[in-house]
Amino acid sequence: MSSENRDQAVFGWVTSDNMAWLTDLYELTMADSMFRQNRNDQASYDLFVRSLPACRAFLVAAGLPQALAYLRDMRFDEAGLDYLSRVRCLTPRFLDYLSEFRFSGDVWALPEGEVYFPPAPLLRVTGPRIEVQLIESFLLNTFNAQSMWASKAARMVLAAQGRGVIDMSLRRDHGMDAAMKVARASYLAGAVGTSNVLAGQVFGIPTYGTMAHAYVMSFDSEIAAFRAFAEDCPTDVVLLIDTYDTLRGADHAVQVAQEMAARGQQLVGVRIDSGDLVALSRAVRAKLDAAGLDKVRILLSGDLDEYRIRELLIQGTQVNSFGIGTNLGTSPDDPSLGAVYKLVEDSAGPRAKLSTGKATLPGRKQVWRFHGPDGTMLKDRIALADEPAPPDAQPLLVQVLRGGEIVGDMPTLAEARERCARRLGQLPPALRQIQGYGTYPVELSAGLEKLRAQAYANAAKA
Amino acid sequence: MSSENRDQAVFGWVTSDNMAWLTDLYELTMADSMFRQNRNDQASYDLFVRSLPACRAFLVAAGLPQALAYLRDMRFDEAGLDYLSRVRCLTPRFLDYLSEFRFSGDVWALPEGEVYFPPAPLLRVTGPRIEVQLIESFLLNTFNAQSMWASKAARMVLAAQGRGVIDMSLRRDHGMDAAMKVARASYLAGAVGTSNVLAGQVFGIPTYGTMAHAYVMSFDSEIAAFRAFAEDCPTDVVLLIDTYDTLRGADHAVQVAQEMAARGQQLVGVRIDSGDLVALSRAVRAKLDAAGLDKVRILLSGDLDEYRIRELLIQGTQVNSFGIGTNLGTSPDDPSLGAVYKLVEDSAGPRAKLSTGKATLPGRKQVWRFHGPDGTMLKDRIALADEPAPPDAQPLLVQVLRGGEIVGDMPTLAEARERCARRLGQLPPALRQIQGYGTYPVELSAGLEKLRAQAYANAAKA
Repeated sequence: MSSENRDQAVFGWVTSDNMAWLTDLYELTMADSMFRQNRNDQASYDLFVRSLPACRAFLVAAGLPQALAYLRDMRFDEAGLDYLSRVRCLTPRFLDYLSEFRFSGDVWALPEGEVYFPPAPLLRVTGPRIEVQLIESFLLNTFNAQSMWASKAARMVLAAQGRGVIDMSLRRDHGMDAAMKVARASYLAGAVGTSNVLAGQVFGIPTYGTMAHAYVMSFDSEIAAFRAFAEDCPTDVVLLIDTYDTLRGADHAVQVAQEMAARGQQLVGVRIDSGDLVALSRAVRAKLDAAGLDKVRILLSGDLDEYRIRELLIQGTQVNSFGIGTNLGTSPDDPSLGAVYKLVEDSAGPRAKLSTGKATLPGRKQVWRFHGPDGTMLKDRIALADEPAPPDAQPLLVQVLRGGEIVGDMPTLAEARERCARRLGQLPPALRQIQGYGTYPVELSAGLEKLRAQAYANAAKA
Repeated sequence: MSSENRDQAVFGWVTSDNMAWLTDLYELTMADSMFRQNRNDQASYDLFVRSLPACRAFLVAAGLPQALAYLRDMRFDEAGLDYLSRVRCLTPRFLDYLSEFRFSGDVWALPEGEVYFPPAPLLRVTGPRIEVQLIESFLLNTFNAQSMWASKAARMVLAAQGRGVIDMSLRRDHGMDAAMKVARASYLAGAVGTSNVLAGQVFGIPTYGTMAHAYVMSFDSEIAAFRAFAEDCPTDVVLLIDTYDTLRGADHAVQVAQEMAARGQQLVGVRIDSGDLVALSRAVRAKLDAAGLDKVRILLSGDLDEYRIRELLIQGTQVNSFGIGTNLGTSPDDPSLGAVYKLVEDSAGPRAKLSTGKATLPGRKQVWRFHGPDGTMLKDRIALADEPAPPDAQPLLVQVLRGGEIVGDMPTLAEARERCARRLGQLPPALRQIQGYGTYPVELSAGLEKLRAQAYANAAKA
């Protein structure tokens, strides 16, 4: 891209050619410094969340396929090297190193869709120090956002108790990549689909749509709008019935449903986007049932989130699915996840940061999960990677990259979705609550406790 | 992309080839219905925000170049047509229409970087009804997020009172596109630069970097780390001095600065990322000044936002620039902007939605801004586009697209940044406050008031 039009480019800002440059400058200046000093010993980093966000009882891991493709394919392209050599004092030999860069490390990770409890590692990366440092910013961007969305969506799925959750957030999401990732992460967490057509195409996610108030208003009458829509598109018809008066809208929907039935067609549903959703949904359900339309579904929308879903169901709302926009796409109760990426071992041995509130656990780790006889999760144990496996516990971290190569097949969205559904089913009941939930025990192994104590003792001596 | 690997794709999800498909499904099903019924009369839509978010005294418009390139280049590609014809009941003739689609409408817009007050239109789009409907979701995604970030960043720039604001949000942003757009929008709003290297390259934005605690800790001593960094990279050196003890860190920085000076080099700054920033910054400034290092700058970071910046400055913090991450990238006090896109006129004349809280203003509009003798903004007036220009007022909406072609040159980021700086300088003092700010008058013209009254009268008759 020429410098004249670079600030006019609007698509393809981040591509597989230049994604390596989507990083904080200090990753490069620190790497240059390490390169000059030949400080490129083997080092291990943990990517982890220090503690649960205030409004979350658990987290759902998401973003692994994106991270793996990045690590496999990242290259520092010529355009970026030219740019940096113009604006920064990086050393020419380091720029040469970057031009030949391939990630050669090993990665162990929590599979996508796994339920996750801080401060266990989501990811353990081992490799030459410069390599494992250079990938920090991108990995954090990848896991923080996607895990945040998957965790938020999982709460909505739990609150909906089997009713459908549909992503309708595109117009409020933080950009184009966010819109795609919200659709993907929420489907992973159990949503039934998205309104986002491109996400449907790219990820193979079911798409859902209804109609807008503007469509209804562009006709002389509501029933004329319903008839026109049902004629054009006799499958997948969901009628928006609250443009004027929701109960009269329901009558019009019943009439059109009966006209459709006479043609051998089936009205899929009606949507209510405003008003007293409890009372209106019950009255609309009664009208539909009275007309023998018990298969016609009710979709609710309008500033919904998991708190509101829970309230609606407690109050007896009649609903088959929820369309959710802003509160899914921007997660206002916890709009960011604060995963960090910290050195835990290098050629000098295990390393730990000891500062209060920002302490890290030293050493390369494995995480073990214990289940009760009925499969319910009991507790997690963070252990050193070389400690023996505890009896009756499952290891959570699996090797996903060896010497820079992906181990086995690239994990699929379908596998992640299935895993997440299974895990949500294994959550202790107290953690499935939307508010006032319980906490989950995460303990340290004897080996890790000992190593941590040594780190503090060494620091006290120093 | 084949269907086998579609959920494994991780980059280039949204490209200039497929961006037209980044839309909500209902835009397509409604458009199909209108197409079948030949309802493709000329229609005008306003893109506007209904009211200011709770924590904002003004908004900054951002996203226009992205919107213009989209409107100019959007195509419904073959892959998407294939996909849709498989999964949805769109009519074949409508799919043919989409395959030939070019946007042919006119657009009037607030220039990027302009200060904006609801409920004036940010954008007015006129064209065949199907065309202007199909672009809704993408336009909202584009303007909502970027204007949200620009508005948040502008508050930080105002709070910093001339000190630098630097975007360091990459690791917490909602995906890759968000990371690029946060850097762009905050620079537009007056930030001095970003830590994001790719944004620096693509947009020509200055990049900033310091070092991480992990870098300092990877050396046997802090001063060894500082020396190594200053040797490798003698320009742009900013030393992170709070890894162990900030005041001793400052002493080490002074020592390294003096060693650099002996080599004819200049230490740029020190960074403090934790602790009592007020007391520490004052003590560090005193140490630097006492050593004759009054040119060495102090950069503060660590969970900052405009509220904290204001508090820090009131308390006498010594600081030259602020590095801001999560609170810039995710704007937790107002994490989304709720712009909407509504029909205001069609072949039947002016149109308005009358429902309480969701009312729209009918007709094609212009917005006029009045200034005091010193250039301070006094008020905005929303008028009909064909009303005569009020004396002594500037029109805010300018034509940017005519018949689908961009009018003049694509606006540049530099122009937008300059405009925003000028406008922030013209804000009434009460609106420059971070909390407890005043309100700004936005009035309706006589013509618009009359048209709105007619709409209500017609509704009452109907």
